[in-house]
Amino acid sequence: MSAIRQTTNKSLMLFSGRAYPELTTEIAGHLGVTPTPTASYEFANGELFVRFEESVRGCDAFVVQSHTAPINTWLMEQLIMVDALKRASAKRITVVAPFFPYARQDKKHRGREPISARLVADMFKTAGADRLMAVDLHTAQIQGFFDGPVDHLFAMDLLIEDVKKKWGDRDLTVVSPDSGRVRVSERWSDKLGGTPLAFIHKTRDVTRPNEVVANRVVGEVEGRVCILVDDMIDTGGTIVKAADTLFAAGAADVIIAATHGVLSGPAIDRLKNSRVSEVLVTNTLPIEPARQFDKLTVLSIAPLLARAIKAVFEDGSVTSLFDGAS
Amino acid sequence: MSAIRQTTNKSLMLFSGRAYPELTTEIAGHLGVTPTPTASYEFANGELFVRFEESVRGCDAFVVQSHTAPINTWLMEQLIMVDALKRASAKRITVVAPFFPYARQDKKHRGREPISARLVADMFKTAGADRLMAVDLHTAQIQGFFDGPVDHLFAMDLLIEDVKKKWGDRDLTVVSPDSGRVRVSERWSDKLGGTPLAFIHKTRDVTRPNEVVANRVVGEVEGRVCILVDDMIDTGGTIVKAADTLFAAGAADVIIAATHGVLSGPAIDRLKNSRVSEVLVTNTLPIEPARQFDKLTVLSIAPLLARAIKAVFEDGSVTSLFDGAS
Amino acid sequence: MSAIRQTTNKSLMLFSGRAYPELTTEIAGHLGVTPTPTASYEFANGELFVRFEESVRGCDAFVVQSHTAPINTWLMEQLIMVDALKRASAKRITVVAPFFPYARQDKKHRGREPISARLVADMFKTAGADRLMAVDLHTAQIQGFFDGPVDHLFAMDLLIEDVKKKWGDRDLTVVSPDSGRVRVSERWSDKLGGTPLAFIHKTRDVTRPNEVVANRVVGEVEGRVCILVDDMIDTGGTIVKAADTLFAAGAADVIIAATHGVLSGPAIDRLKNSRVSEVLVTNTLPIEPARQFDKLTVLSIAPLLARAIKAVFEDGSVTSLFDGAS
Amino acid sequence: MSAIRQTTNKSLMLFSGRAYPELTTEIAGHLGVTPTPTASYEFANGELFVRFEESVRGCDAFVVQSHTAPINTWLMEQLIMVDALKRASAKRITVVAPFFPYARQDKKHRGREPISARLVADMFKTAGADRLMAVDLHTAQIQGFFDGPVDHLFAMDLLIEDVKKKWGDRDLTVVSPDSGRVRVSERWSDKLGGTPLAFIHKTRDVTRPNEVVANRVVGEVEGRVCILVDDMIDTGGTIVKAADTLFAAGAADVIIAATHGVLSGPAIDRLKNSRVSEVLVTNTLPIEPARQFDKLTVLSIAPLLARAIKAVFEDGSVTSLFDGAS
Amino acid sequence: MSAIRQTTNKSLMLFSGRAYPELTTEIAGHLGVTPTPTASYEFANGELFVRFEESVRGCDAFVVQSHTAPINTWLMEQLIMVDALKRASAKRITVVAPFFPYARQDKKHRGREPISARLVADMFKTAGADRLMAVDLHTAQIQGFFDGPVDHLFAMDLLIEDVKKKWGDRDLTVVSPDSGRVRVSERWSDKLGGTPLAFIHKTRDVTRPNEVVANRVVGEVEGRVCILVDDMIDTGGTIVKAADTLFAAGAADVIIAATHGVLSGPAIDRLKNSRVSEVLVTNTLPIEPARQFDKLTVLSIAPLLARAIKAVFEDGSVTSLFDGAS
Amino acid sequence: MSAIRQTTNKSLMLFSGRAYPELTTEIAGHLGVTPTPTASYEFANGELFVRFEESVRGCDAFVVQSHTAPINTWLMEQLIMVDALKRASAKRITVVAPFFPYARQDKKHRGREPISARLVADMFKTAGADRLMAVDLHTAQIQGFFDGPVDHLFAMDLLIEDVKKKWGDRDLTVVSPDSGRVRVSERWSDKLGGTPLAFIHKTRDVTRPNEVVANRVVGEVEGRVCILVDDMIDTGGTIVKAADTLFAAGAADVIIAATHGVLSGPAIDRLKNSRVSEVLVTNTLPIEPARQFDKLTVLSIAPLLARAIKAVFEDGSVTSLFDGAS
Repeated sequence: MSAIRQTTNKSLMLFSGRAYPELTTEIAGHLGVTPTPTASYEFANGELFVRFEESVRGCDAFVVQSHTAPINTWLMEQLIMVDALKRASAKRITVVAPFFPYARQDKKHRGREPISARLVADMFKTAGADRLMAVDLHTAQIQGFFDGPVDHLFAMDLLIEDVKKKWGDRDLTVVSPDSGRVRVSERWSDKLGGTPLAFIHKTRDVTRPNEVVANRVVGEVEGRVCILVDDMIDTGGTIVKAADTLFAAGAADVIIAATHGVLSGPAIDRLKNSRVSEVLVTNTLPIEPARQFDKLTVLSIAPLLARAIKAVFEDGSVTSLFDGAS
Repeated sequence: MSAIRQTTNKSLMLFSGRAYPELTTEIAGHLGVTPTPTASYEFANGELFVRFEESVRGCDAFVVQSHTAPINTWLMEQLIMVDALKRASAKRITVVAPFFPYARQDKKHRGREPISARLVADMFKTAGADRLMAVDLHTAQIQGFFDGPVDHLFAMDLLIEDVKKKWGDRDLTVVSPDSGRVRVSERWSDKLGGTPLAFIHKTRDVTRPNEVVANRVVGEVEGRVCILVDDMIDTGGTIVKAADTLFAAGAADVIIAATHGVLSGPAIDRLKNSRVSEVLVTNTLPIEPARQFDKLTVLSIAPLLARAIKAVFEDGSVTSLFDGAS
Repeated sequence: MSAIRQTTNKSLMLFSGRAYPELTTEIAGHLGVTPTPTASYEFANGELFVRFEESVRGCDAFVVQSHTAPINTWLMEQLIMVDALKRASAKRITVVAPFFPYARQDKKHRGREPISARLVADMFKTAGADRLMAVDLHTAQIQGFFDGPVDHLFAMDLLIEDVKKKWGDRDLTVVSPDSGRVRVSERWSDKLGGTPLAFIHKTRDVTRPNEVVANRVVGEVEGRVCILVDDMIDTGGTIVKAADTLFAAGAADVIIAATHGVLSGPAIDRLKNSRVSEVLVTNTLPIEPARQFDKLTVLSIAPLLARAIKAVFEDGSVTSLFDGAS
Repeated sequence: MSAIRQTTNKSLMLFSGRAYPELTTEIAGHLGVTPTPTASYEFANGELFVRFEESVRGCDAFVVQSHTAPINTWLMEQLIMVDALKRASAKRITVVAPFFPYARQDKKHRGREPISARLVADMFKTAGADRLMAVDLHTAQIQGFFDGPVDHLFAMDLLIEDVKKKWGDRDLTVVSPDSGRVRVSERWSDKLGGTPLAFIHKTRDVTRPNEVVANRVVGEVEGRVCILVDDMIDTGGTIVKAADTLFAAGAADVIIAATHGVLSGPAIDRLKNSRVSEVLVTNTLPIEPARQFDKLTVLSIAPLLARAIKAVFEDGSVTSLFDGAS
Repeated sequence: MSAIRQTTNKSLMLFSGRAYPELTTEIAGHLGVTPTPTASYEFANGELFVRFEESVRGCDAFVVQSHTAPINTWLMEQLIMVDALKRASAKRITVVAPFFPYARQDKKHRGREPISARLVADMFKTAGADRLMAVDLHTAQIQGFFDGPVDHLFAMDLLIEDVKKKWGDRDLTVVSPDSGRVRVSERWSDKLGGTPLAFIHKTRDVTRPNEVVANRVVGEVEGRVCILVDDMIDTGGTIVKAADTLFAAGAADVIIAATHGVLSGPAIDRLKNSRVSEVLVTNTLPIEPARQFDKLTVLSIAPLLARAIKAVFEDGSVTSLFDGAS
Repeated sequence: MSAIRQTTNKSLMLFSGRAYPELTTEIAGHLGVTPTPTASYEFANGELFVRFEESVRGCDAFVVQSHTAPINTWLMEQLIMVDALKRASAKRITVVAPFFPYARQDKKHRGREPISARLVADMFKTAGADRLMAVDLHTAQIQGFFDGPVDHLFAMDLLIEDVKKKWGDRDLTVVSPDSGRVRVSERWSDKLGGTPLAFIHKTRDVTRPNEVVANRVVGEVEGRVCILVDDMIDTGGTIVKAADTLFAAGAADVIIAATHGVLSGPAIDRLKNSRVSEVLVTNTLPIEPARQFDKLTVLSIAPLLARAIKAVFEDGSVTSLFDGAS
């Protein structure tokens, strides 16, 4: 006999970086697995080390990392995990990056700049990733930076459901905080049944290109509850200034909804001290209890990620998870 | 003696596809060269053939093609030219695609779609291209689809100069024909000294996602001359409908400015028969005399391309050609 | 539990380009499947779009396209289909190109030419193809242009069976229309039990290298039925001239047998008006009813392709399908 | 129905180069398979040819070659086998190279040298290998030369077991024949329960860098049985000189243990004529009966390779086979 | 000052493998350089080592090897030289392989075979070669196996000039020894002013496919001097049998002309003992004096290679060296 | 005229990461250039940004970064700089990493570990690096992890010169702190004229593999000045324990010499409080004044790096810079 034959099995294994293990645990709970035991630590000089404590041969690996600060450390940890999985004969490796790092550097704004989002996509490929999964990429074009399948999930339905529940009986206007993301607001408007749209128009003086001269509201906001919609809140500067502009223009109230609660530096204080009534985000990035505040609502992204991972493993359609939103 | 030494020379050579040789000739005139004589033809079954009639060894090759209909034929011709240059020992190959083909398919709008713009960028790489040069990419992220340098030029200054000359003394509003390109209009507004902004808000019924229910103007247009700004005019449907909406909203006049005059199918008739006073485009794509019409102004993109090619060849800064615009 | 385990399944899915859907349908019939529903269309400027209407995750995809005119369009469509399958997580992608495009440009005939057949093979790889399947490649070396498995099928048995049935009782000579394909004729001769061989010798004047001075028959044809054998009939010029030369040399009758009926431009008229008694091809390329004529026999290649696809899917031996012929 | 579904099977197939078929046969025996029948031969000018005589579609292929002299021939044969497997649609290809060729050229010792071990790893990848399996790489870093999984097996336990049985009741010192491999001796010492360590210190004159001036023993050897440990014995020059040095320093006896019995040129004579009592190797490389001698013990590596191949095929843990040793 | 500027120089350096250093020396003489001093040797177990004894940084390297027996050794040596050049910062590396190894395995003749010529091309690329140069590839399609420029030179003019001088006043027929290379004979016929053509038709019994039943001459040879033309003479079996067939068919005389004098095994004896009057080859492969014989004429290929290398270095046109012949 | 010709110039440009700009400034001083002005900063969430403030088209770029803590940040910064250079048309990019990050993870010590040093080498390649330059790689095999030229420099001569000056008249023994680096000590011994050698033998209990049971000195140290030699001092634990063992074994004095002063965590205190008389390192990594201490001598590596960069730019031999040391 010149061959040994067997039926092929596949097995889903979940791996967690150390940035936000609670998210992986939550996903694991929905899937009914436990994250694979992994020894991960930092050497004294900051070099990272990872070793899996169970065999991963032939597995369908999903490597979850949440790219919060220190973001380069967590990115490198995930790359090292992927390298170790490749060398340990994992059959397929999916990088799960709910908040895709460096997504904002998705083009050269001026000459002699990097396109870091493409670099990150290429580094995942180089390390050995076969697939990517992410939530609300800063621009959808980032899908095209990876040479392979990308499962692009959307948190919009999750956020809208919550907004409708709390604010659905008010006169709403969906507002984009700048001119570059009006399309996203338009999608919100459609889902909310056709509310008016507005955006904040920042005027610049061509002789001082990096300086905003004035913020103007374009669209109807007077007397209405404005939902400021963005993909992420980083330092909160732009969005809080946008809220101020809306109030100045007569808005009845302002709420902020964003998928990624980056909330760096002064963000917490700015939001707490602002006149906005609610700040709505998901937990694609961890927000430690000490940094949470009354007006902040954090929705869990874990059920969505779990459903998508299960569909990928079982070759089911992930499209159904987000098609309406795209 | 174990080596022969020589000073290294470099030589710029210009190659033209057959889609729009007049553009290459015009560029060549600005550079003071002639396009390299090339035998190009189609076999009876449509397969293309190309052969250069001069040695191209060691040259710095710039391969110009204008991606007009039949677009797949011209794309394939350019790929074959690049392959032939690679195999004939050209030192460096720059693809010049003033209108980058398939730029609109720069993401998966829904599941199970291609990302054709990335595919095109990869095919250029596979054929042997070292660099790309393009004008006003549909989205700037397409730069990141190519693994190498991309010279991204902007026609905005060219268009604005013309608009200012003719319409600069009127009350202008810059208008985006849809919610996805308001940022570009904002840049126009800045360059025009801070004119108001507006955009056309298309409302959809979520139960019928591909159908637009109504067009609404968001922003101030009444009594003003509206400049509808877009990267391209294809069939003209969207932009003419946008113009109608503006007139209905009280616009004093409407002019249209776009880099790429694709002008497919019914575009010419729609524009001719519309109430817009002027349609302004560049010649990144050919528009045969028979299809031109009174209201149409075509500005030449050749001087900009020639300056950029010269800068690339001489390792000068191309950034200076467009930095203000980005 | 740190892993979910399942038995692995595989599923064969068939995809059809729009060049010749009848061929895919016929293959599908033999396999007992239906081609996957696909939305394919052309934008006004000629850019192509494809979207699959069912989930293709994890499938073993066979993408059939027939590279007839407009050949670059159909090539691009197939590349876009492959890209979409890759990004939608198909497990394995086999390009089925019964007539491999650009196969005749398989070498540089002179300096500064492309090797387009290699370029096409590389583009399929770049788009995401894992495997190729083709019928009667112009030269078998093209298999080596692709970095992966190529299933190279042969139509010879199919054609010979038909020739034997109709002409088997006559005195046959197998004739190559030029000096470059005598080997193929020799294989025919062996299969036909050792008939004589001949070929048409084209003499050229070295001072006018692209011009044929005279056609001479080398080999025994007088009073015999000559079977002119080639891989394809394109414009028919060469083959009809060869037939004339054979009649002039005393052939009793001439029939033409070729795998690929390209039949471009004047081919139909030339063949109809010639003295040959029969033209035998397969349907690797579509021949619309209006272009068919009395002397033309078209054999279906679909059963062979279906058997090969099934064998590939089931990891059976495809070699058995053609080994005798190689 | 738009898809045919089947349960996926996998099949292990074993392939043998011609360098040392007895080793493959022995491995096959342990696995309960027979090596796949293969036609392999050399053309008159030395070019090699390989053809598999059974279908290999979809198989999990393990290609065993033993890199003995003529080493470049056997390396090329294995590369050609991998190429043929790739083109014949093997699903996964593991190169089994018990003695990894060119492992000693794992770095540039001086400028303008090759790194041949990396070149070999890259050539295996280029030919189509997905994985490597090797025993006692000259340096463990060679694992990192291959872009994929490497199963690195260790013969130490096998060798130590034999040493213990025969020499376990004597006063042992583990000796490294040079300063570069003391670490390996340390591992032996640990496994033997903490025996003393020594090494041979070669002094050089900086003005004549390639010439060894003197051999000195560093460590305690007087009156003890010295086990000289190395990864391979090539010409035996270094190791026999080391043994002499040990005897001169008062060693009671010397035995030599090495994984790879290269035994080139004068090795057999040197070892036979030396005062060492035993030479212990494995059969990663063939030693024809005529070259064997009384003091030589050859242990079979086949059981270890068979266990590893089985574990790889079944996605079991190979780590357990060597973890204690690493 | 933020940059140091210099004029760029380039330097041609020639490197020689050990297979046939006399050829490189001859080429070097024509170029007016000396081959770069190189330490090359074989370790006891057959592993090869190479080190260049002068700096090669930034050079334009031409690496000449003649692929004679032991062919795998010389191939590996050349690969190692290329690797060492790449790692030592050579600017451009051209592999000069006058007789391209494994060229005859340029396709799968049957299933489950390698395509070794593609493998060799890929290995050169992997090692670091930027370009290839070869003489009379077995099939021109091999150019397409390499992803980069290939300079394909032809020896035909050299051979024909010699034939004309000696046999030009006789009645000549150009004969192909088999049905697969009639095209090449046709080119000879054209260059000789339109001599008749013939070929040897080997008949096979389909039930015993690898066995030739009979050799028949197709074409006019009676009373004529037959020039048997091939790309190489390996064991001489086919060509001497062809000569016998020609004499049996009444040929007045037979001479043999081939580019590559492989002359393996029984070739010398067969040719010496045959009735052919002359055997004409070039020195792409070495023929030691002891193996030469009276009827053998060896023409030097070195001038052609030297001219091509010089043209490549100086970015001149190589096409002019062979264009008439292609 | 169909080409513009120019003499080619090359220009060296130096780029500095922010980890240790003083080192780049020092190198720049030796070269007579200034580092290219660069805008580098961190966004609030830790994402890095880089933009060059001068044109870099066509330059020969050397990108210097010192991989100190936070090491992943500085690694990512260097990768982003390389990406930006590639996209801005730099002609050649050399990564200068005096201390190569993750060099210690150069192999899998046990199963399911990464090989991070290879991953780092691949990431540099992916970002666009053509070449690497490093000082005293942890193992020389890491050169082979990069697919291209690596300039591997050695600090040994620099260190030895200093040791000789201060300690040259004492009875010296060179000591390796563990069994894995005795070879390096042997090179020191040769350079110092043949001093004795010793090393620290760590014994382990096989049942507790990660625990060292005892440290023993192997070799002659009593009454001698011991020079403990290593490539780096990280936390200082191993080396200080080695020093204690040497003093316990009767050493007259101990000095420590290492290329890379990582000096993490408790290193400063351990070294200060130890009995060693001197600690000698280079400044491949920054040591802020506050962390320096009396016994510490820091030699500058900048002159060596400057000489190497100049040689690379001018295509001179770098080998001469280190050949004696290899």
